Amino acid sequence: MSKGRMEAFSDGVIAIIITIMVLELKVPHGQDLAALRPLAPAFLSYVLSFVYVGIYWNNHHHLLQAAHKVNGRILWSNLFLLFWLSLIPITTAWIGDSQFARWPIILYGMVLLMAAIAYTLLQLQLIAQEGRAAPLARAINSDLKGKVSLVCYASAILLAFWNPLISLGLYILVAMIWFIPDRRIEKILAE
Amino acid sequence: MSKGRMEAFSDGVIAIIITIMVLELKVPHGQDLAALRPLAPAFLSYVLSFVYVGIYWNNHHHLLQAAHKVNGRILWSNLFLLFWLSLIPITTAWIGDSQFARWPIILYGMVLLMAAIAYTLLQLQLIAQEGRAAPLARAINSDLKGKVSLVCYASAILLAFWNPLISLGLYILVAMIWFIPDRRIEKILAE
Amino acid sequence: MSKGRMEAFSDGVIAIIITIMVLELKVPHGQDLAALRPLAPAFLSYVLSFVYVGIYWNNHHHLLQAAHKVNGRILWSNLFLLFWLSLIPITTAWIGDSQFARWPIILYGMVLLMAAIAYTLLQLQLIAQEGRAAPLARAINSDLKGKVSLVCYASAILLAFWNPLISLGLYILVAMIWFIPDRRIEKILAE
Amino acid sequence: MSKGRMEAFSDGVIAIIITIMVLELKVPHGQDLAALRPLAPAFLSYVLSFVYVGIYWNNHHHLLQAAHKVNGRILWSNLFLLFWLSLIPITTAWIGDSQFARWPIILYGMVLLMAAIAYTLLQLQLIAQEGRAAPLARAINSDLKGKVSLVCYASAILLAFWNPLISLGLYILVAMIWFIPDRRIEKILAE
Repeated sequence: MSKGRMEAFSDGVIAIIITIMVLELKVPHGQDLAALRPLAPAFLSYVLSFVYVGIYWNNHHHLLQAAHKVNGRILWSNLFLLFWLSLIPITTAWIGDSQFARWPIILYGMVLLMAAIAYTLLQLQLIAQEGRAAPLARAINSDLKGKVSLVCYASAILLAFWNPLISLGLYILVAMIWFIPDRRIEKILAE
Repeated sequence: MSKGRMEAFSDGVIAIIITIMVLELKVPHGQDLAALRPLAPAFLSYVLSFVYVGIYWNNHHHLLQAAHKVNGRILWSNLFLLFWLSLIPITTAWIGDSQFARWPIILYGMVLLMAAIAYTLLQLQLIAQEGRAAPLARAINSDLKGKVSLVCYASAILLAFWNPLISLGLYILVAMIWFIPDRRIEKILAE
Repeated sequence: MSKGRMEAFSDGVIAIIITIMVLELKVPHGQDLAALRPLAPAFLSYVLSFVYVGIYWNNHHHLLQAAHKVNGRILWSNLFLLFWLSLIPITTAWIGDSQFARWPIILYGMVLLMAAIAYTLLQLQLIAQEGRAAPLARAINSDLKGKVSLVCYASAILLAFWNPLISLGLYILVAMIWFIPDRRIEKILAE
Repeated sequence: MSKGRMEAFSDGVIAIIITIMVLELKVPHGQDLAALRPLAPAFLSYVLSFVYVGIYWNNHHHLLQAAHKVNGRILWSNLFLLFWLSLIPITTAWIGDSQFARWPIILYGMVLLMAAIAYTLLQLQLIAQEGRAAPLARAINSDLKGKVSLVCYASAILLAFWNPLISLGLYILVAMIWFIPDRRIEKILAE
């Protein structure tokens, strides 16, 4: 099966996810600058989630670039990833609404953790399909960044019981680690 | 006529359907874990409908993979399918809101039944266009799964008058039957 | 300029328009069949508008099929068409909310009229680009259906002052005329 | 890396942005013509923003037409542009709600200014990738229109403290300047 439609469908879903988050930013009540103040937490969470969804789209783009075919199992791994990404808008809105309270921060971390696990599964399925000697397998190799992220998300979930702002800091840290898209694939494909 | 734009348009509509369902999950009122409890039925219906729409997208993908051209009648059969799929988000939300009450469960079953009939019509139109000797006709052949699903939906609608949770169980059962995408097409195309 | 992205962008916008209309169908208050009754006018207008947007997508598909290149003027004609189509969801919702009152029906007719004019302009721009001897020009030729539609919309707008239900009947009539997609283009391209 | 998916993703996001703006037009309360009056400012801002997003899509289309490959930095520049465009719907809604009050007009100008800066950055990244001798670099060359726009946005933001309607006039002026898509690229590519 060709990968074209899976890419197109994922592009569609991710484009919608990244855009409907902005619907959670409610039009300010009032006409002056002060009316914007209550939107600040919602806006900050929007920026963070926009960056996260952007990172996933970027990496998904790179990952599929290195793949040649897809099968039923890959389609479902991809839908599993999209499912968790689809929960980012509502958890983002809850973070903003609650002004960074404990449970919203924990739930957000859980969604990020599950999305990261789903992405890892998708990677494994694609490697299994391409073969362990294919460029994709060599490009991903140790996947250090992926492992660090999983540890950070898990720690953030636990640390939120102590102080949710530390967890928020960890989410921002992981976003910064991934901000640079996956050069490994770009390099090995260029070889 | 080439099938490219019909695939692209369907991908767009299905991507939007699968994503706007999440808009029905309202941001919790409150900041603690208990605030999530009232969302449980809505979340469960979201998961079920996500799987259903995912199944339709997967099978649509496989079906069109085996087709070569489309005509006006196929375009309208496809729109007829998309129409019924577009009613999944609102019926899903009603199930969640009403906490699995009788009539929402019946209506949900009717929408699933009509979507299944529309999918069957689309299949017939595509087979008519490809010819009965083409791989597509051989791949679909008896369509046992399709017939079982229709019977399950119809039974679920009737059984809901007795106990809506049995109907819900049937919907979950059908989803499980279809979870494995249509290998027949994949196999015959690979020949 | 290639036409691919204009098709993709139009597919995206039309897919969103056809899908967000369903957001106007509010989840029923109540759990029984009677709770669905107030949704009837909204549902009927949804079906009508779904068919209209489906017709536009179908004809747009056929029209672009016969074109080879686009230019800046064509891109804007296309955006002009998408603008009027984008007003269909809100006017549809107003029709439903007001239970087919006079002014919503008139406004709906105006949006349909403007969309039809915009479609005609797009056709003219495409013919101008392709040349009057190209298949596209021959395929469209007299455009009888287009002219009948314009007359029907204009009449419906005027007749609404007398009885809005007659206008509604005319909108349904035009939808029925167009339901069969534009065979002319299909035939001449097949030659 | 091929540019196809970046185009498709941008098409998706821009299509959603241009379409969700219409969701901010609320269904009128009432059934007569007078019920439409309160929607006038929201409708006018919708038209203006539709034109702006249309311009961005048109120019993005032209710009990418002249590019051949993308890299990680270009993907992020593109997301940076999409981020600012994604804020157009909410600022548009605020303008409409507040009936062209000072701060909404200023915020709208800031979003337009940031989008223009992001677009310029994307242009620079693409030129850096294509090389300064490539058609793209020659096509963009002095980018007079881009510079005039930046000056207009900045002036509009400052002038809003005196009279927000002058700023609105400047936004309309810039839209008119850009209404004609970037012929330079079309011409040089045609050479």
